[in-house]
Amino acid sequence: MKLEFNKDQLLNALNTVTRAIPTRTTNPILECVLFEAADHEIRLTANDTEFGIETVVDGTIAEEGKLAIEAKLCQEIVRKLEGGDSPVVIESDETFLTTIRCEDAVFKIPGRDGEEFAYLPEIDRSHYISMSQFTLKQAVQKTIFSAALNDSNRMMGGLFLEVNGEKARFVALDGHRIAVQNVTLREDYGSAKAIIPGRTISEISKLMTDDNEKEVVLFFSENQVLFSFDRTVIVTRLIEGEYFNIDRMISKSYETKVTVSRSRFLSDVERAVILIKESDHKPVILDIQSGEIRLQAKSAFGSMNSRLQCEQAGRDLMIAFNPRYLADALRNIDDDTVAMYMTNARAPMYFCDDRESYFYLILPVNFVV
Amino acid sequence: MKLEFNKDQLLNALNTVTRAIPTRTTNPILECVLFEAADHEIRLTANDTEFGIETVVDGTIAEEGKLAIEAKLCQEIVRKLEGGDSPVVIESDETFLTTIRCEDAVFKIPGRDGEEFAYLPEIDRSHYISMSQFTLKQAVQKTIFSAALNDSNRMMGGLFLEVNGEKARFVALDGHRIAVQNVTLREDYGSAKAIIPGRTISEISKLMTDDNEKEVVLFFSENQVLFSFDRTVIVTRLIEGEYFNIDRMISKSYETKVTVSRSRFLSDVERAVILIKESDHKPVILDIQSGEIRLQAKSAFGSMNSRLQCEQAGRDLMIAFNPRYLADALRNIDDDTVAMYMTNARAPMYFCDDRESYFYLILPVNFVV
Repeated sequence: MKLEFNKDQLLNALNTVTRAIPTRTTNPILECVLFEAADHEIRLTANDTEFGIETVVDGTIAEEGKLAIEAKLCQEIVRKLEGGDSPVVIESDETFLTTIRCEDAVFKIPGRDGEEFAYLPEIDRSHYISMSQFTLKQAVQKTIFSAALNDSNRMMGGLFLEVNGEKARFVALDGHRIAVQNVTLREDYGSAKAIIPGRTISEISKLMTDDNEKEVVLFFSENQVLFSFDRTVIVTRLIEGEYFNIDRMISKSYETKVTVSRSRFLSDVERAVILIKESDHKPVILDIQSGEIRLQAKSAFGSMNSRLQCEQAGRDLMIAFNPRYLADALRNIDDDTVAMYMTNARAPMYFCDDRESYFYLILPVNFVV
Repeated sequence: MKLEFNKDQLLNALNTVTRAIPTRTTNPILECVLFEAADHEIRLTANDTEFGIETVVDGTIAEEGKLAIEAKLCQEIVRKLEGGDSPVVIESDETFLTTIRCEDAVFKIPGRDGEEFAYLPEIDRSHYISMSQFTLKQAVQKTIFSAALNDSNRMMGGLFLEVNGEKARFVALDGHRIAVQNVTLREDYGSAKAIIPGRTISEISKLMTDDNEKEVVLFFSENQVLFSFDRTVIVTRLIEGEYFNIDRMISKSYETKVTVSRSRFLSDVERAVILIKESDHKPVILDIQSGEIRLQAKSAFGSMNSRLQCEQAGRDLMIAFNPRYLADALRNIDDDTVAMYMTNARAPMYFCDDRESYFYLILPVNFVV
C-alpha cells in the first residue's frame, strides 16, 4: 500500500475515527485504525466492540492495499508532522512495516494485516430519520447528563430515542431525575425506538457540527443504529430490552407553578452547592410563599440563605432537592425564565416550557428545617 | 468586625493570598485567611509554614476587628456572589460566627479568633534588590522546570538566586541538567544569595504581572526573603545550606558548535518524544556531520529518523540525549536560532546565546546505534 495525503485532511479523518478507539483493551487490533485503499477511494475505520466509525478521506493512491496500524500513535505522528504544502506519505511493505513520511521526518512503525480487522456490520437502510447535526448534538447534550453512565443498571446508562411520526424524543434518566428533549422532524418517519449506549452517543454528538444546514441520517435496524453524515458512517450496537415506561413516570398535573429568572435561580442554587459536598447528601430547601422563593442550605461548612422573587400560581410549598440536579437542569435550559411545577414535598417536580421542547423531572428529597 | 467591599477587589485579594494555603494540612488555622481591620486599613494574610502572603484591600471599616476564616471556602463564596454595584459585607460576632452577605444571599460560616494566627515574620529591609515583575516571572519560569521538585534532595527542589553587583543569576538543576538565567539589574546592589523553595517561587511568579513597568523588591535576611510588590508582601523561608558550585560544573569550552533553527529542531525532538515513553529511557541520537544533524529515535513503538540543516563549526560528533530535556530547554528559548556547544559524547552539552542571558546544560546519555 502507498498513499499520499494532505496533512490536515488526514489528521481530521484520524481525529474522527479515533473516537471509537477504546481507552483500555487487551485486544491490540481494537487499538488499530484500518486504512483501505481501493477503487479510487481511501477509507479509514476504527471499530470498538460497541461502535465503529468509518470515514472517507481524500488522497492519492499510488498502490492499493489494506493495513491496520495503532490508531493513537498514528494520530500523534501525523499531528506532529510538518504538513503545509508537503504531502504525508504512508507506505507499507509485505510484512506490514509502515513508513510515515513528511519532508525530512520518517517514522517506521509495525502494522498488521488488515484482514484481521472486523468490518462494520451491514445495516439495512430502509428505515431512517433525518435531522440537522446541530439538533442531534443539542438534544444529546441536553439529556445525557441525566443518564447514570457508571451504574450497574445498563438501561440507565443509555439514551432512549423514540420516533413517532414527526416527533422525536430523547430521554435519559438515573433513578433520581429524568431529562427529555422533544424534537420536531421535517416529515413523518413512522415509528422507531433505540436505546443507545451513553458513551457512544456522547462521542457521536461531539462529531456533529454546530451548522444547522448539515444533516445526519439515522438508520434503524433491530440491534443497531447507523449514523451517516458528511463522509462518515457510525454504527453502534443498542442496549437490548424494553426502556422504562416514561409516560407513566411523567405526570403533568401540579398544584404549584412558579415562574422565575433562570439565571438568578441558577446562581442561588450554585451558591448552595458551595456548602454541600457531593458525599454528604444535604439538600437545598425551597420555601415558596407569597411570590417569593426562600432558599436555604446547611452543612458542616456553614449555612446559606437567599430569597428570590417569583411569579407564583397555586398554594405555598416547602420542598427540598439535591442542588446539583437543579443546577444541571437549569444550565441546560436556554430560556431567560423557567417554569417549575410541583404537587407536594414528596412528588416529583418538573421544569417544562410551553412548547414542551424540554422536560426535566427531579425527585425531591427529605429534609429537616 | 464589620467590613464592606467591592466584590472584585475582595476576590482579587483572596485569589492572591490563597496561593499560600497548603492543599493538605491537619492544622485548620493554616487553611484560614486572616482579616484584620484597624487604622483605616484592611489586611488579608495567609500563612503556610513555608511562606506567607499579606495584601491590603480597599473597603469600608464599619467595625474594626480580627478574624480567621477558611480561605478557600471564603474565596468560593465571594466568587459566587452577585457583586456589581452591590457591596459584599463581612461581619463576625463575638463567637467568630461570620456572615457574608451580598444582595439577598446570606452565608453563615464558623470563624476563628484571629489571635491564633501566626503573623508573617518581621524582616530587616536594609538589604534588597529591585527588578520588574516581568523580569522575575520570566527568569523563574525559564529555570524552574529544571528543578527536581519531588526529589529527596531538598537543595535540588530549590531555585538558587545569586546577586553580584549589577548581575542576578537564577539557577535550577536536577542532576541531569542545569538551567541558568542571567539578568542585568538597574544598579549595583552588592551581593546576596538565596535558595528559594521551588513551589513557593512558582506561586510567587504566578502573581507577577506581565507589565514591565511594575516593580518587585526583594529583601534578603539570613533565612528568609521578602517580596514586596503592589500592595502585597510575601515572606518565604529559604532552603538552608550551601548551593552546588555551579561555576565548577559549567565549562564553556567546546569542540563542536552547531547553530540551528530553534523551531525546526524542537519539532524534530518532539517527534522523537512520541515514540519514547517517560519510563523506557530511550534516547534521541544526534549524528552531526557535514552541516547536518541526523536525528534518530527507536523504541518498542517504532523508529523515527529526520535530518536538519545546521551551521557546524568543529568536528563531527554523535551524541544522545533524553529528548524531553532537549524539548524543555528549546521551548524556553525565545530566539529563532539556537547555538549548541559540545565536546564529546560523554561531556555535557549546553545551549547558550552570545549575551549569555540563558545557559541550559544537559548531560548526554549512553546509546547504541
